[in-house]
Amino acid sequence: MNPLRNVPLAADFPALSHVDTNGRARMVDVSDKANTYRSARAAAELRTTAEVVALVRAEKMPKADVLSTARIAGITAAKRTWELIPLCHQLALSTVKIEFAFTDRTVEIEATAKTKGPTGVEMEALTAVAVAGLTLHDMVKAVDPAASVDRVRLMSKEGGMSGSWCRCASDETAVAPMTWPASCACRSPGAEEDHLLDARD
Amino acid sequence: MNPLRNVPLAADFPALSHVDTNGRARMVDVSDKANTYRSARAAAELRTTAEVVALVRAEKMPKADVLSTARIAGITAAKRTWELIPLCHQLALSTVKIEFAFTDRTVEIEATAKTKGPTGVEMEALTAVAVAGLTLHDMVKAVDPAASVDRVRLMSKEGGMSGSWCRCASDETAVAPMTWPASCACRSPGAEEDHLLDARD
Amino acid sequence: MNPLRNVPLAADFPALSHVDTNGRARMVDVSDKANTYRSARAAAELRTTAEVVALVRAEKMPKADVLSTARIAGITAAKRTWELIPLCHQLALSTVKIEFAFTDRTVEIEATAKTKGPTGVEMEALTAVAVAGLTLHDMVKAVDPAASVDRVRLMSKEGGMSGSWCRCASDETAVAPMTWPASCACRSPGAEEDHLLDARD
Amino acid sequence: MNPLRNVPLAADFPALSHVDTNGRARMVDVSDKANTYRSARAAAELRTTAEVVALVRAEKMPKADVLSTARIAGITAAKRTWELIPLCHQLALSTVKIEFAFTDRTVEIEATAKTKGPTGVEMEALTAVAVAGLTLHDMVKAVDPAASVDRVRLMSKEGGMSGSWCRCASDETAVAPMTWPASCACRSPGAEEDHLLDARD
Amino acid sequence: MNPLRNVPLAADFPALSHVDTNGRARMVDVSDKANTYRSARAAAELRTTAEVVALVRAEKMPKADVLSTARIAGITAAKRTWELIPLCHQLALSTVKIEFAFTDRTVEIEATAKTKGPTGVEMEALTAVAVAGLTLHDMVKAVDPAASVDRVRLMSKEGGMSGSWCRCASDETAVAPMTWPASCACRSPGAEEDHLLDARD
Amino acid sequence: MNPLRNVPLAADFPALSHVDTNGRARMVDVSDKANTYRSARAAAELRTTAEVVALVRAEKMPKADVLSTARIAGITAAKRTWELIPLCHQLALSTVKIEFAFTDRTVEIEATAKTKGPTGVEMEALTAVAVAGLTLHDMVKAVDPAASVDRVRLMSKEGGMSGSWCRCASDETAVAPMTWPASCACRSPGAEEDHLLDARD
Repeated sequence: MNPLRNVPLAADFPALSHVDTNGRARMVDVSDKANTYRSARAAAELRTTAEVVALVRAEKMPKADVLSTARIAGITAAKRTWELIPLCHQLALSTVKIEFAFTDRTVEIEATAKTKGPTGVEMEALTAVAVAGLTLHDMVKAVDPAASVDRVRLMSKEGGMSGSWCRCASDETAVAPMTWPASCACRSPGAEEDHLLDARD
Repeated sequence: MNPLRNVPLAADFPALSHVDTNGRARMVDVSDKANTYRSARAAAELRTTAEVVALVRAEKMPKADVLSTARIAGITAAKRTWELIPLCHQLALSTVKIEFAFTDRTVEIEATAKTKGPTGVEMEALTAVAVAGLTLHDMVKAVDPAASVDRVRLMSKEGGMSGSWCRCASDETAVAPMTWPASCACRSPGAEEDHLLDARD
Repeated sequence: MNPLRNVPLAADFPALSHVDTNGRARMVDVSDKANTYRSARAAAELRTTAEVVALVRAEKMPKADVLSTARIAGITAAKRTWELIPLCHQLALSTVKIEFAFTDRTVEIEATAKTKGPTGVEMEALTAVAVAGLTLHDMVKAVDPAASVDRVRLMSKEGGMSGSWCRCASDETAVAPMTWPASCACRSPGAEEDHLLDARD
Repeated sequence: MNPLRNVPLAADFPALSHVDTNGRARMVDVSDKANTYRSARAAAELRTTAEVVALVRAEKMPKADVLSTARIAGITAAKRTWELIPLCHQLALSTVKIEFAFTDRTVEIEATAKTKGPTGVEMEALTAVAVAGLTLHDMVKAVDPAASVDRVRLMSKEGGMSGSWCRCASDETAVAPMTWPASCACRSPGAEEDHLLDARD
Repeated sequence: MNPLRNVPLAADFPALSHVDTNGRARMVDVSDKANTYRSARAAAELRTTAEVVALVRAEKMPKADVLSTARIAGITAAKRTWELIPLCHQLALSTVKIEFAFTDRTVEIEATAKTKGPTGVEMEALTAVAVAGLTLHDMVKAVDPAASVDRVRLMSKEGGMSGSWCRCASDETAVAPMTWPASCACRSPGAEEDHLLDARD
Repeated sequence: MNPLRNVPLAADFPALSHVDTNGRARMVDVSDKANTYRSARAAAELRTTAEVVALVRAEKMPKADVLSTARIAGITAAKRTWELIPLCHQLALSTVKIEFAFTDRTVEIEATAKTKGPTGVEMEALTAVAVAGLTLHDMVKAVDPAASVDRVRLMSKEGGMSGSWCRCASDETAVAPMTWPASCACRSPGAEEDHLLDARD
């Protein structure tokens, strides 16, 4: 436990957008924001054992519903983000896409969400991967109760007043995610998708 | 990318409980299970910057709603787990409790869920910490878009046919979680709570 | 504005059950409570103009859906109480019944909720009348935007550890509700129902 | 019970907008309405004892979650208004804000909702204060089962074809609400907010 | 059981829009679609006994809630279509209207849904009639457990890139539905409504 | 249009259970019913073209998500039946299972729901097949807008006061459903399942 005693809070430090000057929770007022195209990509991973990864991949079970169940759960949850996250705005998503890939001990999950609206879809993409990951956890927990859903994180976002953002530019120490080139310069989400699909689910 | 070529799938390897022998998704049939007391404790953490941890702790803003918003989001989500996770059973929770603690760069989240029912509450506890973590992420993302929700994991469970399980017994390499004694022998959740609260939110 | 300066807070004053000793929100733990029969009756009223009451009664429109829409909204909302009120437990209701009566300028709403469970159904009955009242407000607001939903209140409850409670015994100054005898001694809800129905919707 | 015998129903009396000429429930067709800025402010109060008001204010419990729980419940419910009120349209809210103030025996609740859409947000603001009030009732009901949620009412609305409306102009006999100037001339919601906040939660 | 052995799958056969080229479920990306007026009309029927049809018509019970309950259920479900159908987009409906008519052994259900949006409302209209039909089934099942909800089908749609479609033009063998003229040439939904209402509920 | 003029309404004709003696909608009061095992099996079919059946079977697309998406939608909807059907009780399902089979022009859908509770699960099974059918319709509607969801019907139920019921005993004229033996004498649902699965999805 490390109490935070000396963290400098510079006067110009950006405030949390979801609390007012008295600390009360609020939805950011987006009345004056234009409806523009916005997209976000998030990733997460289910960390488990090699045996479980093999079961999830279901190589011996060609029509197994494991990944499709997690995909549907993630898509459905993304549409309900505003019900789950109290201060999120209601957004009509143009699309949500969820993809899976594998390493020895992880199932990698990526979600892309898009809208044409007054606020971003970061939380929708993050909710999609988190709930897809929880759904995988539910299906493997009898075999591996020690599994964890790790690194639920934003990979990139585009559109909106605050502009584009890409993880690889801001977080040098991070291990490059499987589907994200180290030389990322805020490439359009989806660009690298085709050549990776054969290695994926 | 490490293709899984030689993982042995022993004939007696426990199958995924949520797919039938043809790989089709199913809800486990709990018709024959008795209603017994069950509890589960899960944990997660929001990994962010020291500045953001200070903002969340809100030492200069004594009534700030940040943590209470995340707490309510987690409690509410736990009750809706069966709506989010497709193969989860509907469970009436006896209680859900969410607690926060802090390290230099993380907000630690723990949830305890209880029921008297025919199946366990692991997913309810995991959903609580995941959604509480996403809610914190929502509130800090304007300041730290690189924040991540990490290590969404089960800490312990009690009750039910499969008996008790405790992370510290099964996962030696894991860093001992803040609120979980290294010598854990499946202690009743809540036992160590009182003396830790003064160091917490 | 009357600041509360001198309210005595006696040490034995009963604490709010939904916050712990540190003020944190919590669901009351009902693990140890038995499943027993419980019922609650709540009431509210839509206060509006005589013209609107006549429209709602729909004497000239014998099959008008106004009251049945409000009734269905109230029943449906009662079942979702645990989704709306963050610290409410999930309860399976045995029944919800909603009735309407009229005065010159009000539509009176009463709801009875029952369950066999570990905690009471006061909030379910209150949510039923509140949402039925809001639904009526929605239907009349184009004609009377000044309408209000008033006196959303518990009338009686039965069952559970804390025993029965009846408004007429505890609240002498209250105007006796239309359907509740002044001499109430915690009569079983429903007892006086038959002879009143001809004066009701 | 006052049967309505002689209420004149003039031929030109405005019909209920939510039933058709045969009395059947309907959603008003807003296909032809433009998306314009709309806002509404509603108020309600929890009427209870002085002791309970003191507990809710939590002067001795500086971080108590009571009001923040009710605030989050109200915000979340406002977004779900269309799920609760059968004939309400789905609206994406630009913001919802909930504030609390106190008198000796009441907790005053005000909500402001905004949208850019084809129909007004009166029901969203009303739902926000009603559910915030029910949530407070839930938290105090063990101490004061006789508490009531009173005067759930619209204070003002702006935008839309039917123009602005303000309670103080239409309802002379009403006690002026705490945060609404007697001389109101449909002032923009929010204008008087700052100087009141120090007397509020 | 007729295994499909020789169905020709011409290369130009239109693919299922909701799976990608690898068969994975996806929401169609509507980012590039304009918001235009769209409407759809769907129909279904509850097939039951003559006695039950008489009970539902409630000729001896002038204010019976049977049909209004089914109407409200259908309207409410239409707004929640995107929660029920995993790959449906969230749509704000401009209106939903549900009507009933009767034959000797069926209750006929029709729903019209409208929106101004980037994608059609076929599923919303279909969900409305299906859930209204299920609600009727629920109310009659104690009397006629053999009742069925039949022919849940699209009648017509208008608007959107794929243009208008009308069942009577495409499906010559179908029995002409009660409220749909045999000579239909994609008439605007609602046009024939008035002269039919007197024969309806 | 056949007006119902001479249907005899014998005094002892069983009343609709969901309206009271005044015709008002009500939830049946199950306070006095014991929690017993109950199950129900329902069926429906998507009627479409041979080409679409081939696409849904996805013989050339071994991991296509079409059927698994419909299965998950049906399971999820079954759990939400009480939210969709206004007078349904909240039930915790012990399991829901959905299966698919094919004929030349139909996708056959069957659902089995089970509970241990005070009321039956007929509506849960019916909702499961109806929403699975609507989900299939959603996926094929771009190819075959004339598709219909047909014969949403109860096949059998077991448990509860009213005893077992089987369609084949009560409905002689019905075409025997694919998975239901003509000689059915209320066999336990599931009994004939194994030998049929190889002909199914």
